[in-house]
Amino acid sequence: MTTEPARAPLGVGVIGVGTMGAYHAESLARRIPGARLVGLADPSPGVAERHAAALGCAAWTLDYERLLADPAVEAVVVATPARYHAEAIVAAAQAGKAVFCEKPIAYELDAADRAIEATRQAGVVFQIGFQRRFDRAFAAARALVDSGQLGRIQLLRSLTRDPASDQPFDPERLRQVPSGTIFRETLIHDFDVLRFLAGGAEPVEVYAMADALVAPAQRAHGFLDTAVVSVRYDSGAMATADASFSAAYGYDVRAEVFGSDGMATVGETSPINVVHHSRAGSTHPRLHWFLDMFGEAYTAELVHFVSTARGQSHPEGTAADARAALILALAAIRSVETARPVRIDEITS
Amino acid sequence: MTTEPARAPLGVGVIGVGTMGAYHAESLARRIPGARLVGLADPSPGVAERHAAALGCAAWTLDYERLLADPAVEAVVVATPARYHAEAIVAAAQAGKAVFCEKPIAYELDAADRAIEATRQAGVVFQIGFQRRFDRAFAAARALVDSGQLGRIQLLRSLTRDPASDQPFDPERLRQVPSGTIFRETLIHDFDVLRFLAGGAEPVEVYAMADALVAPAQRAHGFLDTAVVSVRYDSGAMATADASFSAAYGYDVRAEVFGSDGMATVGETSPINVVHHSRAGSTHPRLHWFLDMFGEAYTAELVHFVSTARGQSHPEGTAADARAALILALAAIRSVETARPVRIDEITS
Amino acid sequence: MTTEPARAPLGVGVIGVGTMGAYHAESLARRIPGARLVGLADPSPGVAERHAAALGCAAWTLDYERLLADPAVEAVVVATPARYHAEAIVAAAQAGKAVFCEKPIAYELDAADRAIEATRQAGVVFQIGFQRRFDRAFAAARALVDSGQLGRIQLLRSLTRDPASDQPFDPERLRQVPSGTIFRETLIHDFDVLRFLAGGAEPVEVYAMADALVAPAQRAHGFLDTAVVSVRYDSGAMATADASFSAAYGYDVRAEVFGSDGMATVGETSPINVVHHSRAGSTHPRLHWFLDMFGEAYTAELVHFVSTARGQSHPEGTAADARAALILALAAIRSVETARPVRIDEITS
Amino acid sequence: MTTEPARAPLGVGVIGVGTMGAYHAESLARRIPGARLVGLADPSPGVAERHAAALGCAAWTLDYERLLADPAVEAVVVATPARYHAEAIVAAAQAGKAVFCEKPIAYELDAADRAIEATRQAGVVFQIGFQRRFDRAFAAARALVDSGQLGRIQLLRSLTRDPASDQPFDPERLRQVPSGTIFRETLIHDFDVLRFLAGGAEPVEVYAMADALVAPAQRAHGFLDTAVVSVRYDSGAMATADASFSAAYGYDVRAEVFGSDGMATVGETSPINVVHHSRAGSTHPRLHWFLDMFGEAYTAELVHFVSTARGQSHPEGTAADARAALILALAAIRSVETARPVRIDEITS
Repeated sequence: MTTEPARAPLGVGVIGVGTMGAYHAESLARRIPGARLVGLADPSPGVAERHAAALGCAAWTLDYERLLADPAVEAVVVATPARYHAEAIVAAAQAGKAVFCEKPIAYELDAADRAIEATRQAGVVFQIGFQRRFDRAFAAARALVDSGQLGRIQLLRSLTRDPASDQPFDPERLRQVPSGTIFRETLIHDFDVLRFLAGGAEPVEVYAMADALVAPAQRAHGFLDTAVVSVRYDSGAMATADASFSAAYGYDVRAEVFGSDGMATVGETSPINVVHHSRAGSTHPRLHWFLDMFGEAYTAELVHFVSTARGQSHPEGTAADARAALILALAAIRSVETARPVRIDEITS
Repeated sequence: MTTEPARAPLGVGVIGVGTMGAYHAESLARRIPGARLVGLADPSPGVAERHAAALGCAAWTLDYERLLADPAVEAVVVATPARYHAEAIVAAAQAGKAVFCEKPIAYELDAADRAIEATRQAGVVFQIGFQRRFDRAFAAARALVDSGQLGRIQLLRSLTRDPASDQPFDPERLRQVPSGTIFRETLIHDFDVLRFLAGGAEPVEVYAMADALVAPAQRAHGFLDTAVVSVRYDSGAMATADASFSAAYGYDVRAEVFGSDGMATVGETSPINVVHHSRAGSTHPRLHWFLDMFGEAYTAELVHFVSTARGQSHPEGTAADARAALILALAAIRSVETARPVRIDEITS
Repeated sequence: MTTEPARAPLGVGVIGVGTMGAYHAESLARRIPGARLVGLADPSPGVAERHAAALGCAAWTLDYERLLADPAVEAVVVATPARYHAEAIVAAAQAGKAVFCEKPIAYELDAADRAIEATRQAGVVFQIGFQRRFDRAFAAARALVDSGQLGRIQLLRSLTRDPASDQPFDPERLRQVPSGTIFRETLIHDFDVLRFLAGGAEPVEVYAMADALVAPAQRAHGFLDTAVVSVRYDSGAMATADASFSAAYGYDVRAEVFGSDGMATVGETSPINVVHHSRAGSTHPRLHWFLDMFGEAYTAELVHFVSTARGQSHPEGTAADARAALILALAAIRSVETARPVRIDEITS
Repeated sequence: MTTEPARAPLGVGVIGVGTMGAYHAESLARRIPGARLVGLADPSPGVAERHAAALGCAAWTLDYERLLADPAVEAVVVATPARYHAEAIVAAAQAGKAVFCEKPIAYELDAADRAIEATRQAGVVFQIGFQRRFDRAFAAARALVDSGQLGRIQLLRSLTRDPASDQPFDPERLRQVPSGTIFRETLIHDFDVLRFLAGGAEPVEVYAMADALVAPAQRAHGFLDTAVVSVRYDSGAMATADASFSAAYGYDVRAEVFGSDGMATVGETSPINVVHHSRAGSTHPRLHWFLDMFGEAYTAELVHFVSTARGQSHPEGTAADARAALILALAAIRSVETARPVRIDEITS
């Protein structure tokens, strides 16, 4: 029997090992041929250590600066709470690492701009975690748009409804979330989808409504759990988006793009290919966990990031995309605050 | 062999015999056991006569006042162009006839109010032609709302997209349509659906966008063919609606009602129960003609009207419903004109 | 107001006014422009009379010979129990009436042949009640076959499962049913479908299994409620069919035709266009009553019959079709009895 | 930064590195936490070497006896051509390795029995590659059966249709395939599914038809590409299966299990959650590659095998399951040869 070395995979470290960071770490350890998980950083004692052990990763730390100092780390995945994204990006860029960052890039535009400028100055690859772009259904819809088969794009829709939780909202946790969480954390995906599927048109105005309908008692704390947004594009196209933090029937992510020659819809059927026919009717099961729905897409976006970090492909989910979606979220928040439509250039100027 | 008389059916006349009036006339002549078509009126020479002949109806006239003078006419279906609805309702009410009127009840609120007041004073039955209430899918969604199975209603959606026409827009015809046709004639259905499925909540504010995306050259004439609307309810619930005059894939009517315990969706699948599996994929045919989609519902609404005219049921699609949908259309038009959200009480006060 | 006569509709009488006869009578009275219900015959006292009254039909009788003697009766619908079909067809043909007969044409081949010969000698139109041919989904599948889009037909499937009843099987009724009811009364539809969609190929051999799985206690009485059939065609194509008298989830009628270039499937989705999304999943309602599924098709087949009786179209569901489906049923019964494949020519020679 | 060793994964070697063996090797190298790919064996020069290099696997060989001699190899995946399965199983069992074998276990019953006896005598774990048992839709159907929600099982269906190939059948390859390939290689999956979903009932009789409909010129060489099978169970339940080597619309795998209280259907919708709505209708894309459909299931079956090899779970897809499906295939072949139903005990006695 004979031995042969494989080509050396890209060394990637993960900063922030919560649910999402842990999934990315597992992908890097197991699911992505061209990558190698070379370090985990999380400030909570024991967290990075435990995941490193489980994944056979040699290195872990409480302090991500130490991870960034490790030359084996060629690229990082930033999966901290979003309020720390910008500073982690800046640090990683200054350390010369390619950066993949979970959405949103930041909660505020100035922080986002600082992060983007740091990656630009360092000349490092940057990719934002808009995984829907890598989901095969969303990608198929985009391909229809790009092919011209849908004609001129006129109407769009995107929505995100999180599955109902068994647990009540945690007031302690609420105190930490910024106002406008539903826009900054959830609808940020939809804002990206509304750009991704618009055939190059760009939003120029946003009108948004939001309320505390799931947990009305939280309205007093400014925690809004349900929102509806209208968007107008420079092309004349129009869109809506909505979000809820509690869908009784499970995780619901859909999109629709309607053009002069046809339409694509995403997410209307169940990916689980079984139906139970009973006295109640014909029932498709639904998914209740986001990794069941987007696990493959999360892997695919990292495959793409690794490829881009190696110069083999162009970024999908660029700094510009990250910034544009954040601007839409900020415009929506201002629209809710002012109860009027808000132009994009009010946010950017 | 022996003979026995059936109970005498309700005598109904039809005022305005265009596509819709002709279908209603045919229903009354053939599809509705408790009714009898007893007269047709249309000002275009030959139209009423021709349909009367085809349907075996004994009486026809160019002047609907003559039809209203006929004692055999116990009830009327008003299916004239919408700008004549209100005056026809007034005349019919004053003649003591039960009145079924196609949507919208009128183009302006004062005309609607005159018509409603006339029916009130005459004490005659009035029903508006919101046939989606009688479609079995919409009715099933409403039953889910009423049963409480969806919980508190939080988000709604309704849309109407007319099938693409083989013919270009007719400028001559355009000169006759009022501004805001897409709201007054098309989205009026969606405005009713957004009330029908809201569990008793009432809209309080509307924000609308509209443009000429199908036929941009008509923008100069004020003819808008694409629109998106956001609605806020007194309950805190929120809704969107959209409409287009040209869907390449056929007639598209959908609705969605999302509550704390579940959701109902209407119109996502094809009612034609066949799939063609080919190299292109698995393809369901779609409908391209509104009577193919709503023929049964149009019949069912007249069955109900006949029953109500005889005192055997309560109106579904009342004068109040007709008025409320018109108000939403007027609010949407004002929102487009002023580029801001418009409160319902701005229209009614 | 002016009067004009419509063209005189075809006078049609109905022989046998059970569920199906009553529905056909109602169609003739109300739903079919070119026809007029002119008489009802049923031997059960009061039945024909009651329906005649309800439908405004002037004539009724206990004895169908009297109906056949009426010159106003130009055509008849035979909807008696199947064991009387053949003699009613013979009598009607000898009276010179066009004949529409419910399926099956007869329980035995010799009776069928006598009936067919009588219609041939009298030169009257004959149509068998295979309404699936007039269902728009089945018709669309057939159109795909005829268009050549499916290529050479290789595999077919047809099935019929009746909705579960709330009531137990009635032993009294069972004593009246012939052995092989599931083949003669139920699968007879599937045997026709397997010919209708086969692109002109004809069955040459049948293998069948049947058992009493719904009501095992009836096995002793020879009442079989579940069956599976395999069919081989002269083209080499192969098919399966199955039937059950009790589907808990409702009325289930499906078909599938697979060719070298594609496939058509019929009946897999629900015709009710609403979905209830709940903790249980996404649920389509189903139909539990055959008239809800095929009401339109039953009307359409009579429209076609009336047109054929007037010489305006060719028969669809001919005497040859009626005979061929019966032969398949008889071959299946013999296959069950002998536990071996049975060639068609064993039945016909 | 600190280092911690993970628990040592199970060392697994792969025997036969064609399409399926390569996929399993990749799974073992990357997708299965508890396993480690420790060697590849394939007699074609360069094949094992090339895959070993790509997967970072240290050891490869042309001769699987050398792989079996390696103490690092604790378990093997047998993915050779099926005619070599039995001898590879025997060798692996005698070497004390846990054995996962692709289906079918063998082409003939005596070879299967020798292989099974070897694993029994060696006391090693054996699992057959019926991956549909690990597909989440099939598993959900099985869970419905096991839960009793479907009641007594009465009717079943399973089918497999391979996607149409761009290339004509290769006569050279055909000379190597045994007669009855469609039963031994393809329908073997369906035979297992018909047992997996039968609620414990066992087949007692098989009737089969087969022909060369895709490539009629191959009929002379005994190569049959289309087949239909009927099965009767000891419980009275009945089933059908069918297979084709060429489905124009893609890879088609479905199943249906119908009981006294309901039904489960598998595979009727598309797992790709996007629909293109165009003038042609509403089109779901389909899958054309078996790994796109069952990639996850192939991984899951190996996860289970690894777990069983470690004594942490019970086998799913046992030697008895492998044998039972082969017996059904052999009964079907004899049925085709003799043109009559064949009892299972004719094969086994």
